[in-house]
Order: sequence, then C-alpha cells, then structure tokens
Amino acid sequence: MKLKLFITDIDGVWTDSGMYYDVDGNELKRFSNNDGVGVHFLRINDIDVAIMTGENTTIVTHRAKKLGIEMVFLGIRDKLAEAKKLCSQLGLSLDEVAYIGDNVNDIPLLRKVGFSATVPKAPNYVKREVDYITKTKGGDGAFRDVVEYLLEKEDLLDITVNRFIERITL
Amino acid sequence: MKLKLFITDIDGVWTDSGMYYDVDGNELKRFSNNDGVGVHFLRINDIDVAIMTGENTTIVTHRAKKLGIEMVFLGIRDKLAEAKKLCSQLGLSLDEVAYIGDNVNDIPLLRKVGFSATVPKAPNYVKREVDYITKTKGGDGAFRDVVEYLLEKEDLLDITVNRFIERITL
Amino acid sequence: MKLKLFITDIDGVWTDSGMYYDVDGNELKRFSNNDGVGVHFLRINDIDVAIMTGENTTIVTHRAKKLGIEMVFLGIRDKLAEAKKLCSQLGLSLDEVAYIGDNVNDIPLLRKVGFSATVPKAPNYVKREVDYITKTKGGDGAFRDVVEYLLEKEDLLDITVNRFIERITL
Amino acid sequence: MKLKLFITDIDGVWTDSGMYYDVDGNELKRFSNNDGVGVHFLRINDIDVAIMTGENTTIVTHRAKKLGIEMVFLGIRDKLAEAKKLCSQLGLSLDEVAYIGDNVNDIPLLRKVGFSATVPKAPNYVKREVDYITKTKGGDGAFRDVVEYLLEKEDLLDITVNRFIERITL
Repeated sequence: MKLKLFITDIDGVWTDSGMYYDVDGNELKRFSNNDGVGVHFLRINDIDVAIMTGENTTIVTHRAKKLGIEMVFLGIRDKLAEAKKLCSQLGLSLDEVAYIGDNVNDIPLLRKVGFSATVPKAPNYVKREVDYITKTKGGDGAFRDVVEYLLEKEDLLDITVNRFIERITL
Repeated sequence: MKLKLFITDIDGVWTDSGMYYDVDGNELKRFSNNDGVGVHFLRINDIDVAIMTGENTTIVTHRAKKLGIEMVFLGIRDKLAEAKKLCSQLGLSLDEVAYIGDNVNDIPLLRKVGFSATVPKAPNYVKREVDYITKTKGGDGAFRDVVEYLLEKEDLLDITVNRFIERITL
Repeated sequence: MKLKLFITDIDGVWTDSGMYYDVDGNELKRFSNNDGVGVHFLRINDIDVAIMTGENTTIVTHRAKKLGIEMVFLGIRDKLAEAKKLCSQLGLSLDEVAYIGDNVNDIPLLRKVGFSATVPKAPNYVKREVDYITKTKGGDGAFRDVVEYLLEKEDLLDITVNRFIERITL
Repeated sequence: MKLKLFITDIDGVWTDSGMYYDVDGNELKRFSNNDGVGVHFLRINDIDVAIMTGENTTIVTHRAKKLGIEMVFLGIRDKLAEAKKLCSQLGLSLDEVAYIGDNVNDIPLLRKVGFSATVPKAPNYVKREVDYITKTKGGDGAFRDVVEYLLEKEDLLDITVNRFIERITL
C-alpha cells in the first residue's frame, strides 16, 4: 500500500465527541476497544499510527500508551503545519499519509493528505472535503472502519485477519 | 445579525439529560466537543454566550471556563427574571437574545426572547413554544446545530468556517 | 386521580440498565434530568413517590435526596411483600399504587398494583404483564413519560405544566 | 440441555466496546444489569458461567464478584488454548461449551465450541463464524439475549422465569 502513516484525530473519531466532566473539572473520554484492533491491523501492514488532537489531556496519552502508539501530538492548533513537520522528520510526503478528523479545525489537513476520511456525524463543510465517510460512528470503531476499508480495497483484509489470528495462537 | 446574545440551558441541550452519580453522590455530566465549536462560531460573529441553568454544580463552571464563557448563571429558578436583569445590565432587549432550553422551567424565557429553540426530545409542551427544533440531539451538538442554523439563514456559515480556518493557520 | 402512590424501580427505568464500574469496583449510574420533572409533576398532583430496587447502593440514596424522595427501599428481594408492608403503613390499598419496573423480579408487584408500566426494552415476559409500555427508553425519561401519560389521560397535563410554571415565576 | 458451560467475552458483549479513561489512565466500563439476569437464568438450569477476556483489569473482577462468577480469566491471548485447559479441568468437551465474543481474537474459540454467538455490531469476519447473532446490542443485554435464545429453543424460558419468581417470593 502506498500509505506509510495514518494520523488520527481523537474527539469525534475515537470518541463520540463526548467529554465527561466531574465536579473538579477533571475529564473522562470514552474510547472503543474496536479502534485498538484498527491500530493492530495497520501495524500488521507496516503502517505507522500517530495521534494529533487540539485537546491537551493526559487521557489521550494513557490511551495511546495502552495501544503502544508513540507519536502523540496534543494541543495542536495548526494540524497541517504539525503534520508537515512530522513528515519531514520521517522522510514522508503528505501523499503517503492518511488522516481522519471530524471538525472545522481538521479541514486544512484533510485537504492535503493522500487519503482523508471523516465520520457520519461530521458537518457538511467537513464531509465535502474527504475521500471516505465511515459507516461506523465516531467512538464506535470509526477508526477500525476506515482501516478495514483501506485494507479491503487492496484485498488485504482477510490476510490481515488471518495473520492476527496466527499471532495469537502461536 | 440582530442577535447580540445567546443564552443556553445546559441539561438536555449541552447534555442528553444524563446525570451520572457516583457512590458519594458526586455528579458527572457528558458534554459534546461540537458545542464548543458553536461557541467559537458565535464569537467570530460578535455574539456573546451566557449559560443559565436550574442546576447548581461546579461541573458547569469548569465546562464554561474551558470554553472561555464568563457569564454563567447557576441555580436559577426564574430564568426569565434573570435574563431580564442580564439584558438590562448589558443594555440589550430580549428581542436581541436567543435562548435554547428543553424543559418546563424554560418555557417562560423561551416565550419572550427574539429567537427560541429546543431539542428533538423536548416534550410537546416545550416544542410548541419555540421557533426552531434542532436536528441534532441534546448532548450531541444541539447548540452547534442552532448556531449553524442561524448563521446559514444569514449566509454567514461558510464565511465563519473560513474565518475559523484562517485563525488556525495564521 | 385514584392513584395515591407511585413506586418506581431504578435500573432499566431511571437508567438504561447501565452500571459503570471503576477499577476499585465502585459503581456509577446515569440518571435523566427528565425523570426529576416526573417527580415534581406527581407532587403537584398530591401523588407520593417511592423508590424500590433490588440493588443496594448509596448512588440511589443520593439521587433520591436530590429529588426530595424520602421513601427509598434498597436491596429488596421480594418487592410485592415490601410494597404490601408500605401500603399498610400508609393506609393504602395496592389498587391506589402505580408501579414501573422492567425485569423478571418486578413481575409479582407489576401483577398486583392498580396501574403497571414498563419500558420498551423490557423482555416480553415483563411486557405482557403491564398496562402501559412507555414510549421513552429507560434512562431517557421513561418515568416522566408514564407520569405524563397518566396526567394526560385525566386531562391534567396542561394544568400541571401551568402550575409548575406559576411556581417558578412567583 | 447439552450445554454445561457458557464462556463469555467482556468488551463488546457485556459492554458496547466503550472504555472510559480518566486523566490518570484509570478505566471504567459500562455493564448492563440485564446480563446479570442471564447469569442467574443459566444457574437455574445448572449451566456454569466463565469470563474470558484479553483485557486485564480489576473492573471485570469486581463485576464477576457482584454476580458470583468464580471462573474469571483475564489477559488471555489464546482463548482457545485457555478454554481447552479449562474443559480438561472440568471434565468437559468443547462441544458442551457455548462461547460469545465479538472480535478477531475470539475467532479461534468461536470455531471450536458447541454453540457460538456474537453481537450485531461484530465485523463480518466474526459474524460468518457463529451460530447465532444476538438481537440485542453489546452492553445492552446481549448475553441475556443469547441465554434466553437457548432456553427458548428448548422450551425452558417460561419455566426459568417462573422458577426465578418463585425464589424471590418464597
């Protein structure tokens, strides 16, 4: 596959945009176990994963750690500029990058990557910018959805599933 | 736009009416990242935002702080009286105010503002009082929905989106 | 109205059956603000509210306290026996009692009260026992739904809404 | 019934795959009260319950304890191997075991048990492997659903409901 790196937004994609606040102002986020599978499926196909979010919270750091994701960019205002910097560090072009995001601040980056995606509940001004709209809602496995869509297109999904199973049962 | 101030209810509008209780009686609320965008879109158009809720909890204070909202009115029994007081302080008439609320205690204020809205799950005795019913459910971005509806009506949505993007990528 | 007391189950009715567990085994429950309105509407019509649940958790105590409900029965195995005891203390017959519950352990009491209700997601062996199935899902305001259904039937809903509004704006 | 043991996955089956993270990286899971009923219905029919999950968290231990489930296997990579070990300890064959799981790592075990099930949101590469797809979503009572499906097939559901009620009202 031409893609070498998948950058993903968090809120609205790995979550349903929900932000749970307690009385002290501490937040919780609800992730989906299914997106973890998406991360593993990319790794089986030698595609790296990076997280890039406008929010700045350790919640995301902890979720990334759980899934072994090392490239985590928090509190990013200009995601396109940040992605360019990352690409230059990794020796990649934006054409080799996929990005999924759901909001107005994601538009500049969605416009420039090789493959762009969003979720069904994204506003129209985001939807009209992307290559693919997931069937699965944000927070329900939208990231796994787009990963499987890409693998399916290259006839790699069944092979990936089988390789995942082989690794477990070794 | 004629509107100068948007007052918003919290429970049922910024949330899906859910109130999470722990064993100590402390509460959590689930907000939507999408409503934060609504707040920013109003600011780009020089419309102020105020929160007015019957509940009295620091959860709301923290969410307001996160979004830079300074006018926060908690534990308000008579919202119409409170809104009148606020208007007189700000030199506004109720005609220049929008309000969104979803419950029986919101009716008096919904009847008197220049523009009123509610959510799809509001009871009929609330729905029949308002100018607009959001397409988006409470807690899912109903506030952004009504903001975008108002901007769209005045052909201001695309301009607002573009101005938001410009600010990020400066 | 002939009804003098409304007894309500909690899990599945005031919640969507969800039980949130943390790593220490402490639980959270998600209630709906809408059911609080149901409680107030009953009071306006001089109908008392009691909570009766098989679970035994302070979460329910805190929610009851917030709504001013004093009759709270936790950890009840035989709800019919408990309801009979309560009725005898209050000088009521079961004919003057309404009950809403959604599960197998609610069946004996549902069969004996003057008015019985359940939620749309209840299993068929519960649904076939009740007088009314709410339109609203458990945790979304099912209790307010059944309260409003009863008031509507007696042409009391609009009056109740108006009396609620009068109390606020006094 | 030929079944002697029901092994169940947790995430995606007893939950909707949601994993709530707080700022310290501690997790919460949302279970359904309805699945507790499923456990009790199996016991009434002398079928044992075991939990087997790839995750390793005390959340599951606490939920199991609440329901009196003693066979809890956490952090299991190769579920088929673990189930075989368990069967040999209990003197059972895999033919006497039912399993419900929703993800790629569940496939090897789903293929070998006497009765296999998954949830409506499972990916197609899981769905095509199972005997039954629940009508109820994961986290909403999918486990009770499959238990009741099995009891119904053997004309045991009404009897089980009645025996449950008898136990309460003794």
